[in-house]
Amino acid sequence: MLNITKPTLLLDEKKCRKNIKRMSEKFRANNITFRPHFKTHQSLQIAKWYRKEGVKAITVSSVSMASYFANDGWMDITIAFPVNLLEVDEINRLAKLVNLGILISDPQIISQLINLLDSNVIVWIEVDTGYHRSGFPVENTKLIKRTIDNLQSADHIQLKGFLSHTGNTYHASSPEEIKQLIRDSVFKLNKLRDQLSKSFPNLLVSLGDTPSFSILNKFSRIDEGRPGNFVFYDMMQYQLGACSIEEIAVALACPIVAKYPERGEIVIYGGAVHFSKEFLEENENLKNFGRVVRLDQAGWHDTGNENYLSGISQEHGIVKLNKQMMEEVAVGDLIGILPIHSCLTASTMKSFLTLDGKTIDHMEGG
Amino acid sequence: MLNITKPTLLLDEKKCRKNIKRMSEKFRANNITFRPHFKTHQSLQIAKWYRKEGVKAITVSSVSMASYFANDGWMDITIAFPVNLLEVDEINRLAKLVNLGILISDPQIISQLINLLDSNVIVWIEVDTGYHRSGFPVENTKLIKRTIDNLQSADHIQLKGFLSHTGNTYHASSPEEIKQLIRDSVFKLNKLRDQLSKSFPNLLVSLGDTPSFSILNKFSRIDEGRPGNFVFYDMMQYQLGACSIEEIAVALACPIVAKYPERGEIVIYGGAVHFSKEFLEENENLKNFGRVVRLDQAGWHDTGNENYLSGISQEHGIVKLNKQMMEEVAVGDLIGILPIHSCLTASTMKSFLTLDGKTIDHMEGG
Repeated sequence: MLNITKPTLLLDEKKCRKNIKRMSEKFRANNITFRPHFKTHQSLQIAKWYRKEGVKAITVSSVSMASYFANDGWMDITIAFPVNLLEVDEINRLAKLVNLGILISDPQIISQLINLLDSNVIVWIEVDTGYHRSGFPVENTKLIKRTIDNLQSADHIQLKGFLSHTGNTYHASSPEEIKQLIRDSVFKLNKLRDQLSKSFPNLLVSLGDTPSFSILNKFSRIDEGRPGNFVFYDMMQYQLGACSIEEIAVALACPIVAKYPERGEIVIYGGAVHFSKEFLEENENLKNFGRVVRLDQAGWHDTGNENYLSGISQEHGIVKLNKQMMEEVAVGDLIGILPIHSCLTASTMKSFLTLDGKTIDHMEGG
Repeated sequence: MLNITKPTLLLDEKKCRKNIKRMSEKFRANNITFRPHFKTHQSLQIAKWYRKEGVKAITVSSVSMASYFANDGWMDITIAFPVNLLEVDEINRLAKLVNLGILISDPQIISQLINLLDSNVIVWIEVDTGYHRSGFPVENTKLIKRTIDNLQSADHIQLKGFLSHTGNTYHASSPEEIKQLIRDSVFKLNKLRDQLSKSFPNLLVSLGDTPSFSILNKFSRIDEGRPGNFVFYDMMQYQLGACSIEEIAVALACPIVAKYPERGEIVIYGGAVHFSKEFLEENENLKNFGRVVRLDQAGWHDTGNENYLSGISQEHGIVKLNKQMMEEVAVGDLIGILPIHSCLTASTMKSFLTLDGKTIDHMEGG
């Protein structure tokens, strides 16, 4: 098939476009704004596939990423990351060109931010409903009300509402628990909205995360969703019950460089600099850095859970194979690995190769 | 100081050059070949600092990296990675330009390799003395002897000896255990060499790994050493007892974007796409992704082990701070983080900034 000699991130365009289409349709059916997170792919080409599904509003996680997509004509961009005051010059520049949304995650920055802004920005208050990464604690209605008061009177600021990332779904042990977590998050955000609705009647609620939007089919009392990872999915999403193995749209093709049948292991050229270093832990002694697939004319096919990447160092990958697979592969062959966390693998690889040989861009830098 | 607005990998040139100088001197004192591993820095500029210390022979971990340094005039390069048959065209090209060393880690590739080679290469037999990543099991003298026989009769191959990476030192719990592991490795390799010395009298022994070469001062019965990480060191090496905090030569400067004093935490712009995802695990509930330092006019200074990066997602870092540090820092400040694994952090960041504002290159791609 493709002329691959070193680790290469394969993209199955059909699977990827199907993932985009399915999620777009789900949002249309629920009549809420689809603002997909582009940090997973960071690709102008893949962004165009979203546009064909009618997507116009997007989410990114850095000012650099906002600039990357703004330069390509995206006009409605939320930077879903606590606003970085050190990049306010670029924020001001971008806000003149596009509808730019930023996050306020800490009341202490507001006065400085107001002083530094000279363009109109859309502002979301980031609310922490239990993930405890960033945002205002959802219980602290008083602080949030005071913050909204301050924002309302400021120039250049158009307040939109409450934005939250229910990232604790990633630690859930079942789809049922994911449903529970997202319902809890929606409940708390709406309670907050109701408490403040007299003074501020039109606040919106925006929620993120792929597990929730993959597992649930009906959404109520939210106005906007920002899933991102579903564009590729990965083994972490599979473990959470958010996708099937067949829906995973990226696989890292890696040369086999040594075979040790007596150990039940092969060594591949493919390590932490390619995959990043995310793993699933089945137990203390069993780490899983990726699932083995066999590359074929149609792309790849699964080989079962006995075949997996069990260890990685900088460039080496150690792969456990069952007897049958061990007999089937030879040194000099390519093997595919479905990554644990596709966002990080894409970010280290910095480009994709489609099954028909097209190179697809990924933003440089971080 | 420097005009930094987003995550930036700072390099303290003085510390780095001192690390290079100290290791070069140790090798000279022991009268063994210093063939430093360049995968840690992957930088033509930093390579020049080695050249000033008289270094001419280097180690890399991929064919791409060999090409990168060969293009800049390095003439003696060992690719310390199981030879990748799929890249044999580039190996043949490079071997015409420089003294190129490759590794044989699996007997099954030899006949193919011999067929494909059309240039003279130096060959090392990779021996596994207990790390179990790649290489011939050291106990299997018979297989190794047969392999040498095959190689001796082949065109284009000049056999050098046995190369091993005692990577199990990275799992050691004390400097004493590291010494034990490296002595064991040296003993086994020399036993193998002695057993074969009648038929093959001039085989060399080459060993890798920074912990051993940092902790030990005297080396006997090895001909060549290939440490790499010592050029920067990092928190993993500090934990192993291989360096002091003050010897760590890189720190990631990160903007503080939110403060949560009630949680004892701040949020920084600096996550898995910048650090990669290596951590030290103090116990099941305490992961350490990096140590906090305060940036100052002279570079940075340590703040003690209470201040550390406790969690990362794609762009977010969660940093635990003690009360004093919490009072000292503000949103919009920069804070420094000493990485857990500097090789991976350098590989994701793809460039360095020295304290006097020079940008230092890092190879693109993986």
